[in-house]
Amino acid sequence: MQFIGILHVGQPWAAALVDSRVFPLAPVPDFWADPEGWQDKSASLVADASGAGSSMERGSVPEVPLVPASARVICVGLNYRAHAAEGSFKDQELPPYPTLFGRWTASLSVGDVPVPVPAGEAGLDWEGEVAAYIGRRVESADEATAAEAVFGYSTFNDITSRKAQKLTSQWTLGKNGDFSGPLGPLVSRDDVGDLRDGLQVRTRVNGIEAQNGNTRDMIFSVPAIISLISETFTLHPGDIIATGTPEGVGYARTPQWLLQPGDTVEVEIEKLGTLTTPVGEPSLRSRA
Amino acid sequence: MQFIGILHVGQPWAAALVDSRVFPLAPVPDFWADPEGWQDKSASLVADASGAGSSMERGSVPEVPLVPASARVICVGLNYRAHAAEGSFKDQELPPYPTLFGRWTASLSVGDVPVPVPAGEAGLDWEGEVAAYIGRRVESADEATAAEAVFGYSTFNDITSRKAQKLTSQWTLGKNGDFSGPLGPLVSRDDVGDLRDGLQVRTRVNGIEAQNGNTRDMIFSVPAIISLISETFTLHPGDIIATGTPEGVGYARTPQWLLQPGDTVEVEIEKLGTLTTPVGEPSLRSRA
Repeated sequence: MQFIGILHVGQPWAAALVDSRVFPLAPVPDFWADPEGWQDKSASLVADASGAGSSMERGSVPEVPLVPASARVICVGLNYRAHAAEGSFKDQELPPYPTLFGRWTASLSVGDVPVPVPAGEAGLDWEGEVAAYIGRRVESADEATAAEAVFGYSTFNDITSRKAQKLTSQWTLGKNGDFSGPLGPLVSRDDVGDLRDGLQVRTRVNGIEAQNGNTRDMIFSVPAIISLISETFTLHPGDIIATGTPEGVGYARTPQWLLQPGDTVEVEIEKLGTLTTPVGEPSLRSRA
Repeated sequence: MQFIGILHVGQPWAAALVDSRVFPLAPVPDFWADPEGWQDKSASLVADASGAGSSMERGSVPEVPLVPASARVICVGLNYRAHAAEGSFKDQELPPYPTLFGRWTASLSVGDVPVPVPAGEAGLDWEGEVAAYIGRRVESADEATAAEAVFGYSTFNDITSRKAQKLTSQWTLGKNGDFSGPLGPLVSRDDVGDLRDGLQVRTRVNGIEAQNGNTRDMIFSVPAIISLISETFTLHPGDIIATGTPEGVGYARTPQWLLQPGDTVEVEIEKLGTLTTPVGEPSLRSRA
């Protein structure tokens, strides 16, 4: 089953997505109070609603990120060996633990929404990757328990303001630009399987391939990351693990290749679909 | 005027705090939609309600952080010279920009709520500091405009899981422990003035002074920090700048001095009051 967020009766709602039809389920906080229950219910709701007036065509309703406002987006840096070897950290040993940094939900977006280039940046950088959604409360869990807590996955582009990211040792500023974290539809875990089995992750800029990696090359698995986090803080349904990007980002190239207004960046991941983001002028920040 | 968050009619509400009386104002999201308006209204509401049944005694109602769920808590590391000189970064030049890392609202708490020590930590560390609350939308603002966007201040203890913080280059994990970010009552800017004029910041552990600094020694001013952030992302009312801690944290001492279950840590800041946090067992995480 696939799920998206929509604006419905003036609120963010969770909806099931079947082909191009959208079936509203519940307000986003209610959905995340029992995501597995809503997944069970959605099949019959979709069957009952098919052909009836209670579904709508995708594209006829505004989409929003399918996350509660309080969600944590915990991003993993340097989770593919070849990416760790291409950037500022290339002369260092691979870290023995996942390098975790944070995004706030205020930076999240959905497909087809333009991302503005902040005025002080020479451009934006792409980081195509898989987002994993937590479906159960997780406190001090082993990897097997952590694996069961994953509700599903989506495409994600961790679009980065590199100048801001590199101002100091901490990356947070450059990882939270307005509209800089687009998420695609959530695909339930049973439709995806184990990331270790390998999903191809491709990023294209104006149709030109920029990244082409595979999730089987992740250094730290999603269950290992969740287990580690859960030793320090308790994860809740709707929290997201952004699992890191493979090699091929723009800032590490010679010459640098960064996204400019007018460009289009796409992240295509097997089983998860294609996430398209137009790049826009700084003035688009007025919508944030 | 002072403000706190309370649980009221089943929801998080903003309330005015006058002496020990609590005057409910509006649900937290409504308060942050127009904090300056609510500040203006609160004086007359308090006058009308005084002696009437619409106020309550502080302590008779559960308190919650006065922040919207979507708020960003942007923390500044190394913002006092003497603190920058005592820890892991002591051999490095002072950074030319504020070192920004993030807390999610899920880690926030209020006074007198126990903070659990995660099972894998040797203890927790204290970081008494001033939190500054954003009251207006801020996009690419100069320092003068940024200064006007500050709605008020509160005490804050950036309680840290040092082992988790130091696992990798990024501090996020160790800065988001369950219940690890207690905030005191918000005091409006007009009652506080300019932090550059100097507020004494003291932290005590079991009554013993551990930190004693002054906000006049900050390297980066609150307006400068807000202005810098606003170049990359747009701040909204309810967002918080945690302004950094002075010297005297526990992990940098020989021997280390870390908070253990049974300890009590207090942060006392001139004009902002005293924030008290008991330290508890790992099992308290079950409440998160």
